[in-house]
Amino acid sequence: MMENVKYKLYLQDLVAILKERLEGTMKEEYSEFDLGMQMECYNILDIIKQQAEAFNIPLAELGLEHYDLEKFMKRR
Amino acid sequence: MMENVKYKLYLQDLVAILKERLEGTMKEEYSEFDLGMQMECYNILDIIKQQAEAFNIPLAELGLEHYDLEKFMKRR
Repeated sequence: MMENVKYKLYLQDLVAILKERLEGTMKEEYSEFDLGMQMECYNILDIIKQQAEAFNIPLAELGLEHYDLEKFMKRR
Repeated sequence: MMENVKYKLYLQDLVAILKERLEGTMKEEYSEFDLGMQMECYNILDIIKQQAEAFNIPLAELGLEHYDLEKFMKRR
C-alpha cells in the first residue's frame, strides 16, 4: 500500500465510525448527559466537514456529501 | 502539494483541534451536559488513537504519542 494512501483510508474509516456513533445517539428519551454526548459528536463531525472544505477534500470522499448532520439537531 | 499528502496534514490538524477541544472541556464545575460533551470528545480521541494503531499510523505523527487522554477521566 502506498504510504500516503493509508491516511485517506484511515479518514474514510473514521468518518464512517463517527456517523454510526451519531446515529447511535438518537433515543426516545435523552438525559442531559446524552444530549451533551450527542452535541459533541455532532460538533466534531461538523468540524470534520468544515476542515475538509478548507483542505480541498471533497465531502463525497468522506461519505459526507449528502449527509444531513442537521437532522440530529432537529429534536431540540 | 502531492494529492495524498493533504490527508495526512488534514488529520494532523484535526487531532490538534480535538485536543484543544478536550482541554477546553476542563472546568471547575460540570453540568451533566458538560460531562457528556467531555466524555464524547474523549471517546472520539480514543477511537482516533485506536484506529491509528490499526492503520499503522505512528501516534507521534498525530501528536498523540505522549498525550495522556486518561487525565481527562480522572475527575469522575
